[in-house]
Amino acid sequence: MTVPGSIMKIAALAGGVGAAKFITGLRRIIPEEELTIIVNTGDDFRWMGLYVCPDLDTILYTLAGIANADTGWGVSGDTFCALNRLHELGCDPWFQIGDRDLATHLYRTEHLTSGWSLSKVTRSLCVQNGIRIGILPMTDSPVPTLVHTNDGTLSFQDYFVRRKCTPAVKGFTFQGIDTAAPAPGVLESLAAADAVIVCPSNPFISIGPILGVPGIRSALRESSATVLAISPVIGGRAIKGPTASMLAQLGNEVSAAAVAALYEDFLDLFVVDREDAALVGRICSNGLRVQTAPTLMGTMAAKIELARQVVEILEREAGKQRGQTL
Amino acid sequence: MTVPGSIMKIAALAGGVGAAKFITGLRRIIPEEELTIIVNTGDDFRWMGLYVCPDLDTILYTLAGIANADTGWGVSGDTFCALNRLHELGCDPWFQIGDRDLATHLYRTEHLTSGWSLSKVTRSLCVQNGIRIGILPMTDSPVPTLVHTNDGTLSFQDYFVRRKCTPAVKGFTFQGIDTAAPAPGVLESLAAADAVIVCPSNPFISIGPILGVPGIRSALRESSATVLAISPVIGGRAIKGPTASMLAQLGNEVSAAAVAALYEDFLDLFVVDREDAALVGRICSNGLRVQTAPTLMGTMAAKIELARQVVEILEREAGKQRGQTL
Repeated sequence: MTVPGSIMKIAALAGGVGAAKFITGLRRIIPEEELTIIVNTGDDFRWMGLYVCPDLDTILYTLAGIANADTGWGVSGDTFCALNRLHELGCDPWFQIGDRDLATHLYRTEHLTSGWSLSKVTRSLCVQNGIRIGILPMTDSPVPTLVHTNDGTLSFQDYFVRRKCTPAVKGFTFQGIDTAAPAPGVLESLAAADAVIVCPSNPFISIGPILGVPGIRSALRESSATVLAISPVIGGRAIKGPTASMLAQLGNEVSAAAVAALYEDFLDLFVVDREDAALVGRICSNGLRVQTAPTLMGTMAAKIELARQVVEILEREAGKQRGQTL
Repeated sequence: MTVPGSIMKIAALAGGVGAAKFITGLRRIIPEEELTIIVNTGDDFRWMGLYVCPDLDTILYTLAGIANADTGWGVSGDTFCALNRLHELGCDPWFQIGDRDLATHLYRTEHLTSGWSLSKVTRSLCVQNGIRIGILPMTDSPVPTLVHTNDGTLSFQDYFVRRKCTPAVKGFTFQGIDTAAPAPGVLESLAAADAVIVCPSNPFISIGPILGVPGIRSALRESSATVLAISPVIGGRAIKGPTASMLAQLGNEVSAAAVAALYEDFLDLFVVDREDAALVGRICSNGLRVQTAPTLMGTMAAKIELARQVVEILEREAGKQRGQTL
C-alpha cells in the first residue's frame, strides 16, 4: 500500500479521535519509523488520584489496535468492575474508566511518581504496546485547559465530559503554558520533518494547546517543511465534538475557512473535504494553497484513502519545491 | 442467637483471617453496636501508588459479606482485568489485587491524599459497606513492618506474599511505632470495654504491632476490663500463616503456651483448643486462667459456637467479679 517513493519524515500534531483515525490510515501509507505524533495534553487531569491523559491514550489505544471505536475512548471490550464498585462506595466517578484502561493510569501515575517524565512513560507505553510510531506529549509539564463559559470557568473534563460541552464557550486558558517547554523530541521532530500535518482535530482545545507551547508555533512558521492541515469541519459541521459550536460561540464562521484562518501564519497547504470545494478560492491567499480530498473517515478504506491523497499532495509539493530549486 | 444478658461492650484486637472468622461468629452473639475492632496496620503498603491495608480490608470485606473465603484475601468473585493488563504492560504486580478490591484502594488513597485520616477513611468505608461494628486502625500513622530474616531485612509483603514466608525470621521492626499514636477511639474503646478479646491472630505480626503502639499495651495492663486471648495455635500447629514457624524460628516452643507467655503481662483469660487441654495446668499461673473451647472455625456454626463459648466465659468472669465486689 506504500506510495512508491513516499519515504518522507512526517510530524503530526494530534488531538484525540479525528487524529487517531487519520493516523490509522497514515501508518498504512508510510513506514511507522518515519512518523512522529505530537499529542495534546491540555485535557490531562487527575481521576481518583491517577494521572489520566485522554488524548495520548486515544492515540495509544488506537495504534495498539485496542481502542473502543464505538465510544471514541477507552479500551475495546473493557469491563467496569472497579468503577461500578466505586459507585457502590458512594463515589460519583462521572468520568468512565474501564478496568484495563485503569491499568494504563496506574502504570503512568506510578512511574510519574517515581520521577519519570510524561514522555518517558509514553515511550514505555508505546514499547509495551508494540507501537513503533513515535508518540510525544506536547510537553512534560501539566498544562491543564480551563474553559471560560457562560457557566463560569470550568476544568476541561468538567466542560467536556460532565457537562457534555453544553455551556457556551467564551475562551480558554492553558494553565502554565507560558513556562512549559516542548517535550524532548518535539522541536527535533519538527526540525527533521519533511512535512508537518495538523490532524483534523479541534483547533481550539486539541491543536490550540500544542501551538501554545512556547517554541512550537514559531518552529512551524519558520519551518522549511511543508506544513499541511486537514480541516476538521466538513460542510459547516464537525464530525465529532464541539468544534462547530465553538467556532460559532467564539464569533467565527462555522466553516473550514475559519479553521484555515486560525492556522494561516504557519500553513502551506490546507486540505478541505470535496464537499467544501466551493471554499477553495476563498481560502487560497498569501501563498496558502488548498486541496480537496475525501476527509470523512467512516471506514478503514476511507482512512487509508485520505492518508494516500494527503501524502500524494505532499509528494507533489516536494516535487514542486525540488523543481523550484533546480 | 444472642446470649441472654450478654450485653457487654467488647473491644477486639485483630489481624487478618483468623480474627475475621472469629468476629463473624461474635457479631451473631452480641449486638454489633457493642463491638469495636482495633486492627493491625503494620502490613499496610503501597501498591502501584495506592495505599493498601490488607488486614483492615480482610475485616471489612468479611463483615460486609463480600470476602473471598477461599483465598483469605480480596473480594469474592472479583475479576483481575486491571492486574492482567498491568502484566501485559510489563509490570510484575506480584500482589494480587482484583478490580473491585482496587476500588477500595483508589477510594482510600484518594481520601488520604485529600487529607482524611486512615480512621476517617475506614469509618466511611464501613458506612458505605453497611457495617455497624466499629473498625479502627490501630494508628493513623504508617507503621510498616520490617521482617529481619536470614535473607536480610524484608518489607512485610515481600516476606509474606512474594517469598511466601520461607525466609527464617530473626525479628521485626515496626517502623515509626515509637512516635505513633493510637488512632482516635482506640484508647477510648479499650477504656469503655467490659472485655477485651485478643483474636486468634499471629502474635508477632498481627497482634505485635497493635501492642507496640505506645499506650495500648499499658492500657491493657491497667484495664479493669477482662482481657481474654484466643490461641491461634492448636496442638502445635497454626491454622493459617507462619505463626508456628515464627514461634520456632524465634526460639519458642510451638504451642499455645508460648503464645500465652507473650501476652502474660496483660492477660486475664486464655482460651486454648480442647485439643490442648493438657496444657491448661502449665499455662495457669500468676492469676492467668485458662479455658478450653473448640477454636477451629471451619464452618459458620463453629465460628458462632466459639464466640458463644467465649462470651459465656466472659459472662462467668463478670459474674465472679460482681460476686467478689459484693
